[in-house]
Amino acid sequence: MSQKTQTPIEVRYQETDQMGVVYHANYLIWFEIGRTHFIKNLGFDYADMERNGIVSPVVDVHVSYIKPIRYGEKAYIETWLQSYNGIRTTYGYTVFTEDGTAAVTGETEHVIVKKDTFRPLSLRKAYPEWHKAYKEIIKDES
Amino acid sequence: MSQKTQTPIEVRYQETDQMGVVYHANYLIWFEIGRTHFIKNLGFDYADMERNGIVSPVVDVHVSYIKPIRYGEKAYIETWLQSYNGIRTTYGYTVFTEDGTAAVTGETEHVIVKKDTFRPLSLRKAYPEWHKAYKEIIKDES
Amino acid sequence: MSQKTQTPIEVRYQETDQMGVVYHANYLIWFEIGRTHFIKNLGFDYADMERNGIVSPVVDVHVSYIKPIRYGEKAYIETWLQSYNGIRTTYGYTVFTEDGTAAVTGETEHVIVKKDTFRPLSLRKAYPEWHKAYKEIIKDES
Amino acid sequence: MSQKTQTPIEVRYQETDQMGVVYHANYLIWFEIGRTHFIKNLGFDYADMERNGIVSPVVDVHVSYIKPIRYGEKAYIETWLQSYNGIRTTYGYTVFTEDGTAAVTGETEHVIVKKDTFRPLSLRKAYPEWHKAYKEIIKDES
Repeated sequence: MSQKTQTPIEVRYQETDQMGVVYHANYLIWFEIGRTHFIKNLGFDYADMERNGIVSPVVDVHVSYIKPIRYGEKAYIETWLQSYNGIRTTYGYTVFTEDGTAAVTGETEHVIVKKDTFRPLSLRKAYPEWHKAYKEIIKDES
Repeated sequence: MSQKTQTPIEVRYQETDQMGVVYHANYLIWFEIGRTHFIKNLGFDYADMERNGIVSPVVDVHVSYIKPIRYGEKAYIETWLQSYNGIRTTYGYTVFTEDGTAAVTGETEHVIVKKDTFRPLSLRKAYPEWHKAYKEIIKDES
Repeated sequence: MSQKTQTPIEVRYQETDQMGVVYHANYLIWFEIGRTHFIKNLGFDYADMERNGIVSPVVDVHVSYIKPIRYGEKAYIETWLQSYNGIRTTYGYTVFTEDGTAAVTGETEHVIVKKDTFRPLSLRKAYPEWHKAYKEIIKDES
Repeated sequence: MSQKTQTPIEVRYQETDQMGVVYHANYLIWFEIGRTHFIKNLGFDYADMERNGIVSPVVDVHVSYIKPIRYGEKAYIETWLQSYNGIRTTYGYTVFTEDGTAAVTGETEHVIVKKDTFRPLSLRKAYPEWHKAYKEIIKDES
């Protein structure tokens, strides 16, 4: 069973640049919105994790820009779990315009670390429930 | 003796919006750059304060926009201490374009609080040196 | 009849700073979201205005910060027309946390100008319908 | 002869997030600062290109995060031309902390297009001088 989520995005004027389109770095912020939604949809809560002194930094990012998006357009972002190995989690994303055209695609890879020291932790050990859910999604998709 | 500082600002492409000028909220970030420089110039260090669990949130902001600034233009920001009463500190700012025209003016009011609880502290008690320096600047200017 | 709008805001992780709360400049972006909604709710379209070569820069901003907002909290913004004189439009805003506490209040003053030259225009002459709607709201509220 | 540039970066408070480090998307903005400097260092001017109705959107981005950077730290960015084929230009970047540790590496791929239509242009044809300079750098480095 796919756990893909669709999240609507309203383009903010502030997100445009003088090229007249959404500034390229802002799609990483949209990815984060998609990722937050994806995680919440599975019943987990990232804010909660942080309250326990654990954060989940991005270790790798890749973005491909196919088509610019403009202020006034509607967009939505599709988010899925691309790979997971107990330590590293990779999410995949496609940003679509209203008519269903893929405008931007990308992926972000994450680990979890202690907030104080940035020492790496294993998601498998720290959040066994979360680990189990991700393992199942990956299994179902392969 | 005035302690006014001048800080050069290089306009970032990312700071523009589709109006073709610097997005209005970004001047608050420039104010922060000016303020950081002003404080450092007096021999104090805001990053250090935070390492001691104290932060200095903004409680009030006012900005007047006179003239837009564009990517490719050079700008600089003048920062000064506008008022100080032992609890509240107000900084004043003017952003100038290269030819010396005032483009944006503003002021920000700050307190200091415990990072954990956001409970207010007195700068006078927590940082007597800092308090003394600000008192002297204010006295000299009045 | 009041035309006040309520717009939900989902706090983005990116909007926080190392103080652990929403960075103060970001409330200006939230104001913009509220303003866009307010304008659309009256049946007008800012993106359309821009397509006609007219933009509406902010000329004055005032913000008061009462209570910090954190990632994971829900917020909403109330927006209304505060004053209007045919040339200058001032919008008022209050950002509330989920439990109805006012966290941030502010106002922004706007004019309209030609995008090419930043020459001021009169909203009354350029957009008589818009002018009429604003006049009526102001009349009803006074 | 290498044309690599080194550009100092002062970490802005606004660039941090509640993780206490620079927010990952902001490195794309730093890359842009490095790129602007690299281009200017060769005697070209991106702002000028835009005044001629030509813009240079990013079509692909890759970033690897090795080590977080914090407010109060000094950083600098090294920028170079990684590949160029007359149509597509790829810049490479490494962000270093003060002690010379590589904290972030990345690359961005660009094309040039008409601002009005986003129709692709050839840098070789539109900017022969620029083309020649890039060809020579690439030749020298291979």
